[in-house]
Amino acid sequence: MSSATPTSSGAGASADDPERELSPVADFSTEERAAVYRAIYERRDVRNEFLDAAIPQEVLRRILDAAHHAPSVGLMQPWNFIVVRDRDTRAAVHAAFERAVAAEEQLMPDDRRAHYRSLKLQGILRAPVNICVTCDRTRSGATGLGRTQQPDTDLLSTACAVQNLWLAARIEGVGIGWVSILREADLRDILHIPPDIAIVAYLCAGFIAQSYVRPELEVRRWAKRLPLEDLLFEDFWGNKRETP
Amino acid sequence: MSSATPTSSGAGASADDPERELSPVADFSTEERAAVYRAIYERRDVRNEFLDAAIPQEVLRRILDAAHHAPSVGLMQPWNFIVVRDRDTRAAVHAAFERAVAAEEQLMPDDRRAHYRSLKLQGILRAPVNICVTCDRTRSGATGLGRTQQPDTDLLSTACAVQNLWLAARIEGVGIGWVSILREADLRDILHIPPDIAIVAYLCAGFIAQSYVRPELEVRRWAKRLPLEDLLFEDFWGNKRETP
Repeated sequence: MSSATPTSSGAGASADDPERELSPVADFSTEERAAVYRAIYERRDVRNEFLDAAIPQEVLRRILDAAHHAPSVGLMQPWNFIVVRDRDTRAAVHAAFERAVAAEEQLMPDDRRAHYRSLKLQGILRAPVNICVTCDRTRSGATGLGRTQQPDTDLLSTACAVQNLWLAARIEGVGIGWVSILREADLRDILHIPPDIAIVAYLCAGFIAQSYVRPELEVRRWAKRLPLEDLLFEDFWGNKRETP
Repeated sequence: MSSATPTSSGAGASADDPERELSPVADFSTEERAAVYRAIYERRDVRNEFLDAAIPQEVLRRILDAAHHAPSVGLMQPWNFIVVRDRDTRAAVHAAFERAVAAEEQLMPDDRRAHYRSLKLQGILRAPVNICVTCDRTRSGATGLGRTQQPDTDLLSTACAVQNLWLAARIEGVGIGWVSILREADLRDILHIPPDIAIVAYLCAGFIAQSYVRPELEVRRWAKRLPLEDLLFEDFWGNKRETP
């Protein structure tokens, strides 16, 4: 395993004026801005629309490289990506999902259980590729920059990588579904993940020809989009004055 | 506080064929794809390059609305955004940063401490706007869909919102810096955040005219980009066969 080793070990390393590497920020054109917002607004959590078509290696590599260019605390880049294509492995994960969903169903309020059961919640077998995204919590050593006060920032960095992956997938025509109804112990066992590696996300990936215009859980009336205004405060929690 | 209330409470709610809301997926053009990858690759963690210029409300709103369109487990949308412009409030956060960085510095190995001290790690006062991103862990009630097995997925969803915010900011010419060297108790006190609300990120935001071509911590030789190939496995942890 690689680790984020410094290329030199003292303050002298930055003596050659790092600010010379500052460059003017080039604007994004109107069309470029529209493309990025389009990706953000058209991204969907896909469960059932995966096509039975392989994802070419170069497409998958672009998607994973986008993930790898997420921000990470102290530039620790704590993520790994396990690309799961093997059918037996995906079948084992699917069986683990079935057990986990049965457990979650029991905890649903009576008036939501039938609705819950009607939802399609994963595409583990339908999607030709699954991707398990993990976080190596010790990659930067015992004293990672920026993790003394907030040790879980490495997990949050890894979630940022998932979001980059998701947006890159969208523009490549690849749908992504995040399956969170899985027991960590099952995934760890099936994918041989060591105890010191955290499991952050289990994703299904495949080309799609159709998708929902709104979030599927909104279409299926499980929940609805909240008004942005309700989520904004000014200067301190609860203060609604002058929100944008 | 709003909550993600279902618009109806039974399986009958989805009886009117939700799949009629499926639409053909439109391709992204070569130019659109390039714009999204450009945003992903040019995004930087900014500490020192913020300009002293207000962010117009409509720009800030577009950035926050992009964040609000992140994926969230069970569509729970657990995030809130506290937009901090007040100078005294930012000064209090800055003082909390100074205390936290002194504590982290003591934990650095001797051979990295001088280098650590040379790094610029925040732009709390220089940036005209700070944004505290929080996560309401009970927004979807006691039994959120998809959180029985992995309860922290709400925090990961909120990190996805941060990444959307960051990319939208980049295309608007606004730099973002994530300050993780802050004690949660200090932020909670200064921003009046209730005990049941988790604090996910404290961000500095402001227009920038210059930025680093590579991550600043790489330019300043704190860490370097890992090769993507080292981070990929096939089918199970540790298996390097056939990686893309």
